[in-house]
Amino acid sequence: MPVKSYGAVNKDSAISPMQIQRRDLGAHDVLIDILYCGVCHSDIHMARSEWGPSVYPIVPGHEIVGIVKAIGAAVTKFQVGQVAGVGVFVDSCRTCPSCQAGQEQYCDYNFTPTYNGFERDGVTPTFGGYSSSIVVDENYTLHIPFKDHLDRVAPLLCAGITTYSPLKFAGVGKGHKVAVLGLGGLGHMGVKFAVAMGAEVTMLSTSPSKEADAKRLGAHHFVLSTDKEAMKKLNNQFDFILNTVAAHHDMNAFIKLLKLEGKMLIVGIPPEDHRIAAAGLISKRRSIIGSNIGGIAETQEMLDYCAEHNILSDIELIPIQQINEAYERIIKSDVKYRFVIDMKTI
Amino acid sequence: MPVKSYGAVNKDSAISPMQIQRRDLGAHDVLIDILYCGVCHSDIHMARSEWGPSVYPIVPGHEIVGIVKAIGAAVTKFQVGQVAGVGVFVDSCRTCPSCQAGQEQYCDYNFTPTYNGFERDGVTPTFGGYSSSIVVDENYTLHIPFKDHLDRVAPLLCAGITTYSPLKFAGVGKGHKVAVLGLGGLGHMGVKFAVAMGAEVTMLSTSPSKEADAKRLGAHHFVLSTDKEAMKKLNNQFDFILNTVAAHHDMNAFIKLLKLEGKMLIVGIPPEDHRIAAAGLISKRRSIIGSNIGGIAETQEMLDYCAEHNILSDIELIPIQQINEAYERIIKSDVKYRFVIDMKTI
Repeated sequence: MPVKSYGAVNKDSAISPMQIQRRDLGAHDVLIDILYCGVCHSDIHMARSEWGPSVYPIVPGHEIVGIVKAIGAAVTKFQVGQVAGVGVFVDSCRTCPSCQAGQEQYCDYNFTPTYNGFERDGVTPTFGGYSSSIVVDENYTLHIPFKDHLDRVAPLLCAGITTYSPLKFAGVGKGHKVAVLGLGGLGHMGVKFAVAMGAEVTMLSTSPSKEADAKRLGAHHFVLSTDKEAMKKLNNQFDFILNTVAAHHDMNAFIKLLKLEGKMLIVGIPPEDHRIAAAGLISKRRSIIGSNIGGIAETQEMLDYCAEHNILSDIELIPIQQINEAYERIIKSDVKYRFVIDMKTI
Repeated sequence: MPVKSYGAVNKDSAISPMQIQRRDLGAHDVLIDILYCGVCHSDIHMARSEWGPSVYPIVPGHEIVGIVKAIGAAVTKFQVGQVAGVGVFVDSCRTCPSCQAGQEQYCDYNFTPTYNGFERDGVTPTFGGYSSSIVVDENYTLHIPFKDHLDRVAPLLCAGITTYSPLKFAGVGKGHKVAVLGLGGLGHMGVKFAVAMGAEVTMLSTSPSKEADAKRLGAHHFVLSTDKEAMKKLNNQFDFILNTVAAHHDMNAFIKLLKLEGKMLIVGIPPEDHRIAAAGLISKRRSIIGSNIGGIAETQEMLDYCAEHNILSDIELIPIQQINEAYERIIKSDVKYRFVIDMKTI
């Protein structure tokens, strides 16, 4: 069926209106009328083929919240009228050890991305959430345990799970000192989660203007990472550092802030390799752990956790007609902390 | 008391005979007549001030095995005539959390190195095992549960514990696939330990000539890391990689051999920073963990484990007069796999 969307036709084009085809409702599919879609920095990278050649036309968007409009004949997990969400992927091989373990994000045969990829058939392109509706297998659809603020829920589907998963995997809890590196879409969620999990949280940022906001988000401390004296006092202090920075930065300067057996959790992918001194890790049995979004079960767990702890993303709601300006502002880090598209403006 | 030793007087000097002063036996000290001392690559780095300026004169050697010749009035852990060992450090602050936890190797105030450093007073230099005897606090002295092959025991005090500790920390055991990277003094011990712990062990090396030896040491598989096709087959295969390489190498090429949540254990310190792509860690929740030797309790555990499992180092025994040639051969990786000095030749 034809669906109104916004997307790019090539790497140099603006995000503009286009019509795409969604598949007919299959037995296990749910049709979701999209209410809100968050704008992730990856949307920009992929719209512009900055991570290798993208599949065009491309309709970005993988932080999707909407209302179930119809369900396939065999659907048991959703009912018409329920609020539902879609995150970074819409399918996976379902049979590899990772999928069997509910870690679809690490599928040995690669998950099916919500956009900029192909369905399991390898030929049908997927289209994301800058769109009035989407058809998704019920097993890759999330229940949204919120009634209000659904615009602020949308970013949980990527920024939320990307920061929740490594903190849970690392076992962050009461008594731990956690630093969050980078206060953007990911970092602001990281602060909220680490605080909710009971940790003493320090925001590390290069920008003094973020101090008040970091405190408002719940951070107990704020340290300017450009302040050498202040940074020196943080040596060997943290159990965990949640590193959300996707630009080049001096990893060694932060690794030494970890205490014995401290762990640096990285979720950002800078364009260049990190430069890491072996001695910084060896001298205190420190480690660096990578983490990529989360599986469907853990994403549901995160949403339920957010509902229970009243955790929402801080957003700026925009009509879809402002998406290109929003991209430019994201590139300048000029957003607090996530743009979300009000999809009724489409 | 004056003690016959071999050492260097400056960074350019050969290792030559010299006399040093050992302290008089304190209440908690043991005097050890040194039988054997292993030659570690660090000896060369430090004799030549390659890791920053060293303390001269320097008497290298931190893989020491000998016989207890005398004990201080308050010593309870050793008796005259027992076989004893000394490793990489001879003291630490004893009060920081790391020391309290028996992790003296990670002492917050730095351990006292067996050579090229100072006692806790900060002024009395320490001298290592290229020497006819040494005086060490009983709490930093190891029991050697071997009667024979004491020359082959000496390298356990550094090469042994350096590889045993990370494998134990990572929980290596039956059912795990472990790769060992680099077949030198550390790597050959890593193979023996990983095999003894029940893992399926693959030796990764750039040198085809090492295949037969790797198999003899117990490795189940040998793969040339320069063979691109063979390496491709190893993608996502290993639970752990014990990386003993201290020269520059392409970490990304090995990180991708780790399976989901696989761990790269690094014990070598190359002169330059590692270059590590974030995506390699993030895509499979992989991690890199540094590890530095081991604490006194774990070193004792390792020695007991070696006695129980009949694990010894493969060595070339040399008279101390050949130490300078030995250094040159170590630099060319021309040793299987550790030189040990027969100290009666002094």
